[in-house]
Amino acid sequence: MDREKALSLVKEQLTEKRYIHTIGVMETAVELAKRYAADEKKAELAAIFHDYAKFRPKQEMKNIIIKQQMPADLLLHHSELWHAPVGAYLVKEEAGITDDEILDAIRYHTSGREHMTLLDKIIYVADYIEPGRKFPGVEEVRLSAQKNLDEALKQAMSNTIIFLIKQGQAVYPQTLEAYNGLLLNRKDRLND
Amino acid sequence: MDREKALSLVKEQLTEKRYIHTIGVMETAVELAKRYAADEKKAELAAIFHDYAKFRPKQEMKNIIIKQQMPADLLLHHSELWHAPVGAYLVKEEAGITDDEILDAIRYHTSGREHMTLLDKIIYVADYIEPGRKFPGVEEVRLSAQKNLDEALKQAMSNTIIFLIKQGQAVYPQTLEAYNGLLLNRKDRLND
Repeated sequence: MDREKALSLVKEQLTEKRYIHTIGVMETAVELAKRYAADEKKAELAAIFHDYAKFRPKQEMKNIIIKQQMPADLLLHHSELWHAPVGAYLVKEEAGITDDEILDAIRYHTSGREHMTLLDKIIYVADYIEPGRKFPGVEEVRLSAQKNLDEALKQAMSNTIIFLIKQGQAVYPQTLEAYNGLLLNRKDRLND
Repeated sequence: MDREKALSLVKEQLTEKRYIHTIGVMETAVELAKRYAADEKKAELAAIFHDYAKFRPKQEMKNIIIKQQMPADLLLHHSELWHAPVGAYLVKEEAGITDDEILDAIRYHTSGREHMTLLDKIIYVADYIEPGRKFPGVEEVRLSAQKNLDEALKQAMSNTIIFLIKQGQAVYPQTLEAYNGLLLNRKDRLND
């Protein structure tokens, strides 16, 4: 699917503000794909569609999670997590995107997962650092993303987990697995 | 076992500094047991023995974890976590403590666990707030512990997870389960 077609499909689904965010993620993801030798076209499409389900009604997302037998523990956690796996499903059903790498990058763009692919990492980081993002710590992650994608990812995940805990929110276990995986799968591990 | 006997067994295992910490945990745990109507004698013994294995050689702890078929993922995580389950084992083997509530409170005093018992909570919180502890945030947890043990536990766990992440360390999944459990098992949950 070409960029213009993808953007027109997504535009219908989003508020103007979120569409502008999506453009920022798309441009950032393509830059990162160039820098880290990922497939630029896949990065572009995954970024364009990453928030496709963002404004679906909660009840619709809940029904899809149950009917499609997605991990049931999603329903115990904040509904902010739901649009990512539901988005992967709807982008396939409604927009006809069938590439599993693209769908996975959409599916895990909020929670992360252990053993993230290069495309997963690019979309996660691009979503965090796109030019419209202003929150504390984002500049450090932008700088890291120019040199070391895993370092940028670790910083973004660390900031996200700390933010959730300071807000008194639960942390989705898969998010901790993703974070721990970045530390524990390295060769310079503790206890070796 | 009476207090004096227990203290004399533990004193042999600890540095002087850690023994003074243990006395602080003991006194705090007994106060908390009185306040929250737990078994004071069990709280006293669990507190006295909580750090029993603190100074065992890493290799000995590793061997016990493997031979006693404790959760193998402990070995992927920081060795600071090991003395708690290894302590529960050694306190039974070497000191003859057989009460499962006491042994569990020792076993989970560092990681926490989902569905902590009242005694688990008392030992975890007493270990965090005993008078010798000086770290940032401890005063807030001391105040909470006078009114609401679950709130104190949540604050202590939040501080611990944030501390670990700021240090660039992994977080043991059971610790996150314990923290999430305090939030997600409540009736005023999100998404209901």
